[in-house]
Amino acid sequence: MYRTSTCGELRISDVGKTVTLAGWVQRSRKLGGMTFIDLRDRYGITQLVVENDLSLGREFVIQATGKVVERESKNPKIPTGDIEIKVESINILNKSLTPPFTIEDQSDGGEDLRAKYRYLDLRRNPLKKALELRHRIAHEVRNYLDAQGFLEIETPYLIKSTPEGARDFVVPSRMNPGQFYALPQSPQTFKQLLMVAGYDRYFQIVRCFRDEDLRADRQPEFTQIDCEMSFVEQEDVLGMFEGMMRSLFKNVLDVDIPNPMPRMCWYDAMDKYGSDKPDVRFGMTIHEITSEVQGHGFGVFDSVPYVGAIAVPGAAGYTRKQTDELTEWVKRPQVGAKGLVYIKLNEDGTIKSSVDKFYSEDDLRKVAAAVEAKTGDMILVLCGQKRKTQTQLGVLRVEMGGRLGLRDPHVFAPLWIVDFPLLEWSEEDGRFYAMHHPFTAPKPEHLDWFYSDKKEDLERVCANAYDFVLNGTELGGGSIRIHQADVQERMFQVLGIGKEEAEYKFGFIINAFKFGAPPHGGLAFGFDRTCALFGGQETIRDYIAFPKNNQGRDVMIDAPSKIDAVQMDELCLASTVKTIDP
Amino acid sequence: MYRTSTCGELRISDVGKTVTLAGWVQRSRKLGGMTFIDLRDRYGITQLVVENDLSLGREFVIQATGKVVERESKNPKIPTGDIEIKVESINILNKSLTPPFTIEDQSDGGEDLRAKYRYLDLRRNPLKKALELRHRIAHEVRNYLDAQGFLEIETPYLIKSTPEGARDFVVPSRMNPGQFYALPQSPQTFKQLLMVAGYDRYFQIVRCFRDEDLRADRQPEFTQIDCEMSFVEQEDVLGMFEGMMRSLFKNVLDVDIPNPMPRMCWYDAMDKYGSDKPDVRFGMTIHEITSEVQGHGFGVFDSVPYVGAIAVPGAAGYTRKQTDELTEWVKRPQVGAKGLVYIKLNEDGTIKSSVDKFYSEDDLRKVAAAVEAKTGDMILVLCGQKRKTQTQLGVLRVEMGGRLGLRDPHVFAPLWIVDFPLLEWSEEDGRFYAMHHPFTAPKPEHLDWFYSDKKEDLERVCANAYDFVLNGTELGGGSIRIHQADVQERMFQVLGIGKEEAEYKFGFIINAFKFGAPPHGGLAFGFDRTCALFGGQETIRDYIAFPKNNQGRDVMIDAPSKIDAVQMDELCLASTVKTIDP
Repeated sequence: MYRTSTCGELRISDVGKTVTLAGWVQRSRKLGGMTFIDLRDRYGITQLVVENDLSLGREFVIQATGKVVERESKNPKIPTGDIEIKVESINILNKSLTPPFTIEDQSDGGEDLRAKYRYLDLRRNPLKKALELRHRIAHEVRNYLDAQGFLEIETPYLIKSTPEGARDFVVPSRMNPGQFYALPQSPQTFKQLLMVAGYDRYFQIVRCFRDEDLRADRQPEFTQIDCEMSFVEQEDVLGMFEGMMRSLFKNVLDVDIPNPMPRMCWYDAMDKYGSDKPDVRFGMTIHEITSEVQGHGFGVFDSVPYVGAIAVPGAAGYTRKQTDELTEWVKRPQVGAKGLVYIKLNEDGTIKSSVDKFYSEDDLRKVAAAVEAKTGDMILVLCGQKRKTQTQLGVLRVEMGGRLGLRDPHVFAPLWIVDFPLLEWSEEDGRFYAMHHPFTAPKPEHLDWFYSDKKEDLERVCANAYDFVLNGTELGGGSIRIHQADVQERMFQVLGIGKEEAEYKFGFIINAFKFGAPPHGGLAFGFDRTCALFGGQETIRDYIAFPKNNQGRDVMIDAPSKIDAVQMDELCLASTVKTIDP
Repeated sequence: MYRTSTCGELRISDVGKTVTLAGWVQRSRKLGGMTFIDLRDRYGITQLVVENDLSLGREFVIQATGKVVERESKNPKIPTGDIEIKVESINILNKSLTPPFTIEDQSDGGEDLRAKYRYLDLRRNPLKKALELRHRIAHEVRNYLDAQGFLEIETPYLIKSTPEGARDFVVPSRMNPGQFYALPQSPQTFKQLLMVAGYDRYFQIVRCFRDEDLRADRQPEFTQIDCEMSFVEQEDVLGMFEGMMRSLFKNVLDVDIPNPMPRMCWYDAMDKYGSDKPDVRFGMTIHEITSEVQGHGFGVFDSVPYVGAIAVPGAAGYTRKQTDELTEWVKRPQVGAKGLVYIKLNEDGTIKSSVDKFYSEDDLRKVAAAVEAKTGDMILVLCGQKRKTQTQLGVLRVEMGGRLGLRDPHVFAPLWIVDFPLLEWSEEDGRFYAMHHPFTAPKPEHLDWFYSDKKEDLERVCANAYDFVLNGTELGGGSIRIHQADVQERMFQVLGIGKEEAEYKFGFIINAFKFGAPPHGGLAFGFDRTCALFGGQETIRDYIAFPKNNQGRDVMIDAPSKIDAVQMDELCLASTVKTIDP
């Protein structure tokens, strides 16, 4: 061992001990013939004092032996700040080139440069804390689930490509020329097979792969906490994983979340928050005001099926410039509203709107009452198709919450969204799609509607499906699965999937279900995002040791890259990329 | 919840309770108007008694409610054997087709059939125990390493293909046409980068991929316990992971392994056991008898550089037929010996060999003394090139140990093999290869030899490398890594790897090492094999939930398989497989 102590552990009670530390030179400064070194390792920083002039570059790796002494000028900012090491001998274990950016909490390096030198970026404290948090959460998850009788069972990564959903990454098989494995988008079918196999309680912290066009903060490989249970109903699953999240919040963050956790039905979430993943850290809920505003001669409102509003607290003082900016903001394609109407409930008791010519003060007060607005608030109104407008209001609400500082990342407001519709009607395709996936069970009390031929009956079938939502982000979701062959057949029928097609796409799982499938259900949590939210961050990249960039590239190792002709031949593959001769 | 209790938990103290169980019908028999059902779930089997004739097929999924009563004829073989459930109501949750093989400890199904219906095979007790054991070992490993300050850090699965070692599986990138990711053969470079990044103690239970021609009991995807530590010397690594294995043996199997664990230097292992993974559950070690047997006119022995022997205890009674069979056995290509000489130390005090015409009784007794053979033993002698002959004797030794029942899978004899040669000379290629990999550090005390130009000096350089061997199987191995640029440069020079080639193959890691790499080292354990050996089995297949067959196929899901033309086009790939028209 190159050390007797780490750089994070020595305290005033260690004064007098002779110790050896090893680590990286965070900084080094000469002062009156002495050299002061901040030595850093994973565990902290300790000050070394050398009684001569010493030239050590940043990030040099050194080993130093000396006596622990009390510091004259203590540093209360670090746990080792009461002591320093009076160095008796020092040993340079390795030199370092000057890093291309500073290894500090706030680095001066740009994102691309830090990605290329990820191993240096990872030395920075915020990233180290992020990966430590990730480890801690994974460990707590495993302890909780182990204690609850779950078995972690590894499912294969080289599986079969399924021709629907997101794109699979595929892996050519050399031993089976012309054939490919696929990397799993999730272990969904395998975990259901494990239930058929009688494993009763399964979990896995598992990598998943999706070959999607990457949006910001999407990764081609990501990690899930994947779980499944047998002989359970929705209530059992919710209770189990509410318990898991409660224990995570308590053990990792020392935060108490409500017991029981709040639940909201999907329809309420859409109506009140314009989102199936509502941020309930703040109110500002959406209210329908269609009946209040229609029939007053304002054609815009009269010609639409839905008018809704939110009351932004304390925003009555917004200037014309600010409301204009907001109007432009909601008209951006990302939101897509056609315009914005506002009503200000001024502090002086007056009321003022952008549609004053159509509405009397009394009319406006009725709207204010419907929206539960108070003096000082500004009401923002959007209109159009119901769900679309609610979604726009939801986006606006979150934006205003952010602007008003109501979205503190260290406040945690988890809830379950339940009672999802089972099916979604696609106007374009003239058919139903499964809102979750085709194995999600309809609620037993909705089976009559499920077997009805009427579109409106099928539309109101709810699923035993549930999402875990935290601070406006869906962290997890799942469902009770169909375990009866006849219900599954009906599901395929409703989705317009013929017997042959079902057999081709889902054959082996349908077959497995014929041999005594138990009632079962489960869910999966996005692990990267769980870690990020627990860390109070919105982006996941810092919570993944070696992430890919937005083009799916790892710029540190320069992957993906070309492979040589021999490999291509062995795989019986030829590239069809057209190259233009220079 | 479909149950109040599992099928494994009810005892005599529960008599009188009303309970609900759910599970699979293991068997069902009618007797005098009653039906007796063995109900099975993951946790055990409980007998149900129904007071009428009931026809339930094997593997039907049922739910039954009734009162716990004391059994008249108790079954001491199962933990619930004192009680049974007097059923008041029964509910068929799902029917089952008749399984294609029996779901019993010893199934009547062939291997291929069971592979196709893996989800049914997994219902059998031995497989369930295997996966439970796997979960338990993984959990204990994580607890131990977490307590020791290790962080589990996930490294990427979509990485860069490296053009040496075993073949990579590759993954075409749609977003980067003509380019490929590779699946990792191990996270070796990433864990070393994490040490450069200052993470100090890393581990991961991680999937690895190798596109090899599969031999028996090899899998294209397998799992490692992968570990790395900074600021350590060999002694620290051995101590840490000896501790891990000791805690595994104790906590999982309640077996105490020696403290400290035995160590054997590589040269001794080769000389005495003819293997770098000696099975030390039994003696029967190899002895060189070259000087004892040469010069007696037996040309076969006189013409070779090495003659070696083992003394097989109590085998003097082997018949001519048996020794003939053994001779044929060692001449098989898998062993490759040219012939076998035996010397029997008969119980009656006589001594008899297959080479009596060249050796006097006295000569043979000298050999017997050299081999430490006792009365009743049979000495088996092979000759040829030293290492090759020792290896053949090693294989013969293990075979004889097996035949004599000395290889009890529930006896555990772990040891470290240390002091490996750093380099291996290839006569064919006329160059040195790294015995482990090019980042393995030479022993500091051998640096003079390492910098010598003489082949014989380089051959005796030992590495700070180590293998963990259990019962004749290498479960893990690792090394202290090179962390100094000049030593790494010398290593590439010795291996005949030019600067440009090194830069091309190992560029990003060499570059990372310029920014303050700490001294570090680590190791990896084969997790599948660890589980199998802990379970007392030699083959890993039962310890993997969904293994591939020897052709790398998952016959249950039928993977790999063809992908459709659209996918191929999107990936800019064409198949060059020649198909013959029917």
